[in-house]
Amino acid sequence: MDTTESSAVAEGVDALTLTNNAGDAKVDNVLNGVEATEYDGDGDGGDVVDPWNVASSNERGIDYDKLIKRFGSSKIDEELIARLEKIIGKPVHHFIRRGIFFSHRDFHAILTLKEQGKPFYLYTGRGPSSGSLHIGHLIPFYMAKWLQETFDVPLVIQLTDDEKSLWKDLKIEDAIKLAHENAKDIIAIGFDSEKTFIFNDLDFIGKCPAMYQNMIRIQKCVTFNQVKGIFGFGDSDIIGKISFPAVQAAPALSSTFPFIFTGKKPVHCLIPCAIDQDPYFRMTRDVAPRLGYPKCALLHSSFFPALQGAKSKMSASDQNSAVFLTDTPKQIKNKINKYAFSGGRTTVEEHRQLGGNTDVDVAFQLLKFFLEDDAKLEEVRVAYTKGELLTGELKKLAIEVVSPIVEEHQKARKALTDESLAKYFEIRPLKFTH
Amino acid sequence: MDTTESSAVAEGVDALTLTNNAGDAKVDNVLNGVEATEYDGDGDGGDVVDPWNVASSNERGIDYDKLIKRFGSSKIDEELIARLEKIIGKPVHHFIRRGIFFSHRDFHAILTLKEQGKPFYLYTGRGPSSGSLHIGHLIPFYMAKWLQETFDVPLVIQLTDDEKSLWKDLKIEDAIKLAHENAKDIIAIGFDSEKTFIFNDLDFIGKCPAMYQNMIRIQKCVTFNQVKGIFGFGDSDIIGKISFPAVQAAPALSSTFPFIFTGKKPVHCLIPCAIDQDPYFRMTRDVAPRLGYPKCALLHSSFFPALQGAKSKMSASDQNSAVFLTDTPKQIKNKINKYAFSGGRTTVEEHRQLGGNTDVDVAFQLLKFFLEDDAKLEEVRVAYTKGELLTGELKKLAIEVVSPIVEEHQKARKALTDESLAKYFEIRPLKFTH
Repeated sequence: MDTTESSAVAEGVDALTLTNNAGDAKVDNVLNGVEATEYDGDGDGGDVVDPWNVASSNERGIDYDKLIKRFGSSKIDEELIARLEKIIGKPVHHFIRRGIFFSHRDFHAILTLKEQGKPFYLYTGRGPSSGSLHIGHLIPFYMAKWLQETFDVPLVIQLTDDEKSLWKDLKIEDAIKLAHENAKDIIAIGFDSEKTFIFNDLDFIGKCPAMYQNMIRIQKCVTFNQVKGIFGFGDSDIIGKISFPAVQAAPALSSTFPFIFTGKKPVHCLIPCAIDQDPYFRMTRDVAPRLGYPKCALLHSSFFPALQGAKSKMSASDQNSAVFLTDTPKQIKNKINKYAFSGGRTTVEEHRQLGGNTDVDVAFQLLKFFLEDDAKLEEVRVAYTKGELLTGELKKLAIEVVSPIVEEHQKARKALTDESLAKYFEIRPLKFTH
Repeated sequence: MDTTESSAVAEGVDALTLTNNAGDAKVDNVLNGVEATEYDGDGDGGDVVDPWNVASSNERGIDYDKLIKRFGSSKIDEELIARLEKIIGKPVHHFIRRGIFFSHRDFHAILTLKEQGKPFYLYTGRGPSSGSLHIGHLIPFYMAKWLQETFDVPLVIQLTDDEKSLWKDLKIEDAIKLAHENAKDIIAIGFDSEKTFIFNDLDFIGKCPAMYQNMIRIQKCVTFNQVKGIFGFGDSDIIGKISFPAVQAAPALSSTFPFIFTGKKPVHCLIPCAIDQDPYFRMTRDVAPRLGYPKCALLHSSFFPALQGAKSKMSASDQNSAVFLTDTPKQIKNKINKYAFSGGRTTVEEHRQLGGNTDVDVAFQLLKFFLEDDAKLEEVRVAYTKGELLTGELKKLAIEVVSPIVEEHQKARKALTDESLAKYFEIRPLKFTH
């Protein structure tokens, strides 16, 4: 029983569920001190956010303040940012500055560790459901890279090819192939091979007894009622889905990687991820202390909107919903010009007079996510809001920012050899001061 | 959808369940062609037989004929025995002759393979819940040894330390230790190290990607409703239990052992086991054809009775319920004399006049299981039934048969070196003609 954190109920959590045994699920969660919300497909204001669905009925997208309240996490506020900047002695990443990473769990505890000179590690991941990533997929990895460089800590990256094989109509062999393809895109972001371990479950679990043993330890702590409450699983779901959450939880226990963490003492874990992954880590945070581990800390990102607007997340299965890392400059230009939802007015005259809305404008969102220069971004925002900048001009700016990022990425990916790829997957010690 | 075997309903299966969603479970099973009975804790005539509970309210023990009907398996009849003896050119093992192995699934198919010179392999296992085995635990292994020697085929032995860790209050480390201790007892039976691979899940799954990949393939084919129906799992069960059946199923797919079965063609599997394990393999037989594998064949043994009588199975947790492989000759003598349930009469006079009942007499059961000489056994049976042989004399005979078996076993176990033990666990090819 966890006494260090208030219970789900105390954290202002909704108790709605879509399941038949809501009462049971609730009782189990409370008994075990789970801080999780029960599955709430209806969500707040029509928002649905879980590991498999993200949808909003609002043009501005998900209401993230409501999500913080519903999930029981904490807002990344000015005070936290000030503390972080003081500790690292430099400005925070613009993802944090601009509220793209907007929520956290226990990040203060990580900062305290840093102040005390104590170690921690980073963990993030991806479910390889398609061969090519879109630019929205870069967000947690960009943050992981910045955190790794800023704190000089090891990073483990899990590719859940087992999850994708279970959820999608995907053969084991094909899921493994997608994992390796995705790894190339991740490595191309520029992670330090001395400090980064990448693994895909379908290979790694068969190469590391400690991982399977931790999966069993975790599976022993979680009931069907709990995963029903947290993830909305039902009686007709396959047993692979039901036990999978333990696979995503295990890398948050440092003993899963005995070749990296050779000491007996558990090492704290910080997870930068999109907020739809939070249910997995709420469960993990419930289980970890019962197994003698600290709760993992989290940094939650918002979702990059689809080109068509913020009512949905970009989808790897819809080529026109996003800028993909495989797109040519011409494709990027056409996609943004053709599909990027505009916050501008219907006529030039009206736009000049009333100005555009940057909150819903997808071209502006592209700049917000990928243009690092704060002054330039503010300049654009003001000009667009005043109507001085037209939609076509804003889109041109977005194309000029995104296109070189994708081009650079493709160059870096192309330069990767099988040998350099293999190095990240090698089971080996990382550079890490205990 | 399996069309080669009649459905559960057609096989005369009870449709009772102990769960709340019996209807759902039934529908799922029928949809997927599962040949399983639903979980029937009440059973026939008060018998309970599932992987975790075996109990009968009858002095003669489980009604095995009813069990065959309920499970939908086939009786090992005179015709099958005659065919087997013709093929192997020698008498069958006395376990088969005496109906100790009494039921099967698809054993005729295995005999046909043998006639055609086609390969198959043996698979059996043990859940290591205690450090020392009792003599009842020897039964499937004796049969596996006889089958291995008779057919010259490879044998894989699974030690489900993960299962025991999930079901019992047993730490991962302790479960692994028990698995290694149990392996010594199994090896002491005399398996050919060139043809036998022994593995414990908590180590092996972390050393063989093919095993985890097959677990996922199986977990993708089985719903919670199905394991609820087959095993009686409920919503409050831990997720580790719910997905575990895939772990016991995977070794019945030959591709789980790529280092043994190097060809691409699936190899047939024959499983000698106690009939309480049948639910796992009913599930496996449902799944295998959907993954391109033949259904595993089975040979089912009955249970050796507890010393106290046939109303229950021997229990490793009750030292006086069984003869253990660690018992001294003196302990064996005392246990049998003191606890072995007698089918004799209350006075010598009455016994001489009316005779004893060998069906319920545990000393006689010991002879039936472990005295190989048919003529001698029949002589004892007749003499006891007529009252010529007294209970004390029968117990003396049983002690004389069991004691040397245990002594020999202890000698063989003691002679085992760490090196010879390690050989069985080594991931390596076995002697096997494809």
